[in-house]
Amino acid sequence: MSRRLPSAHGAPGLWLYGLHTVRAALANPRRRVNRAVLTAHAADAIGRPLLARVRHEIATADGVAHLLPAGAVHQGAALACEPLPSRDLADVLNEPAVGRRIVAILDQISDPQNVGAILRSAAAFGISAVVVQDRHAPPESGALAKAASGALDIVPYVPVVNIARALEELGKLGFWRTALAGDGEQSLSDAVPDGDVAIVLGSEGAGLRRLVRERCDAAAFIPVQAKMESLNVSNAAAIAFYEMRRGSPA
Amino acid sequence: MSRRLPSAHGAPGLWLYGLHTVRAALANPRRRVNRAVLTAHAADAIGRPLLARVRHEIATADGVAHLLPAGAVHQGAALACEPLPSRDLADVLNEPAVGRRIVAILDQISDPQNVGAILRSAAAFGISAVVVQDRHAPPESGALAKAASGALDIVPYVPVVNIARALEELGKLGFWRTALAGDGEQSLSDAVPDGDVAIVLGSEGAGLRRLVRERCDAAAFIPVQAKMESLNVSNAAAIAFYEMRRGSPA
Repeated sequence: MSRRLPSAHGAPGLWLYGLHTVRAALANPRRRVNRAVLTAHAADAIGRPLLARVRHEIATADGVAHLLPAGAVHQGAALACEPLPSRDLADVLNEPAVGRRIVAILDQISDPQNVGAILRSAAAFGISAVVVQDRHAPPESGALAKAASGALDIVPYVPVVNIARALEELGKLGFWRTALAGDGEQSLSDAVPDGDVAIVLGSEGAGLRRLVRERCDAAAFIPVQAKMESLNVSNAAAIAFYEMRRGSPA
Repeated sequence: MSRRLPSAHGAPGLWLYGLHTVRAALANPRRRVNRAVLTAHAADAIGRPLLARVRHEIATADGVAHLLPAGAVHQGAALACEPLPSRDLADVLNEPAVGRRIVAILDQISDPQNVGAILRSAAAFGISAVVVQDRHAPPESGALAKAASGALDIVPYVPVVNIARALEELGKLGFWRTALAGDGEQSLSDAVPDGDVAIVLGSEGAGLRRLVRERCDAAAFIPVQAKMESLNVSNAAAIAFYEMRRGSPA
């Protein structure tokens, strides 16, 4: 989904696009940026202070579109940059948090639209990290970042080698690990712990892998009608984040 | 998004695709179906009882794909059918409901992925109707139906000429009309009425039109972090439906 291009440093880079996405990338000190191409209108919307840190040029909307995959909704803004440096889960969790810490664990959810939408909700609800398995997660891409609407540069997106092991570590740190599953033993609203929580989500087709589910302290269901067996995974994630913040806002 | 084809009746039709979507369409007595094209595996998954009502043929996955827009995730199942007959809001609301009645009103939300995802959540939470403005809503299409994962044939999708007038009618029927808006005066969890409720959602860019918002009894916000100003509209809808069912399941 991302277009690779030779960066200013000779390394491969990617194109991000969309006003929220480009603004968030420019505002993120961890993001190495190479070059921005913008319409005059988009440059105005983003503003001089953010654009000061990147070489940029003004183009027509067609000129911006030409740099991007067909159909990309770019809103006049494209930014060539480097993928974010990988972060370590333990480091991320050392950062201060307001309210309970919430971590989202995505077990083999591969669709970049869904993962992007989950990142966006994660930013909205102050989630500390979105953890994915590095071999099965969508890489940073323009499509992922656009669906995240800037959240890729706000919420740590943390790849791990082994999800089950990450859950063990979270357990040692005192996180209550709740799997979301249609056949869970308690409803989501009864599954809110007092302290930190890890919400574990599986793919819509396969669900959670057994080894992952076995590392959880509980499995919770979202009460839905029998005639519609499951929610879209990004909608289920949004509901779970909302419920975890409902009694204890960030 | 939909491929029009000459139907058995000479009228234009559309192709639906995906296992859940085709299964739900075949199970819907209101849906006029013309022809199904399926892989042997998909035909097995859908089963003889549902397939008995439609002329169908077995094809390869490529043969199914050939009938559909490029990239359609068809899972081996395609169904040529007629759009559903339009339904009247008053008729839909005369049908029996369990728990409080909930209606979703979409004010100029045009993206078929978002509207489809909202339909899917609406089915999951037993929403009585999803009301849209006929001039600004996505028409029935394969993409809309696929995102809805069968819900287009479960939840009434009701076009109206004028959203503000529909809200007036809902008010007369005793519905409490709650707009979802970032600058609402109460949080969503404080905005749950005792009885029937209409949830009114605007587009992510423009929000609710003034005339629509003025017809609402209250405006509610979903508590989110300042650093991420808004949720994806389908995620916001899912959270609102969940909250409205939280204390009073269907």
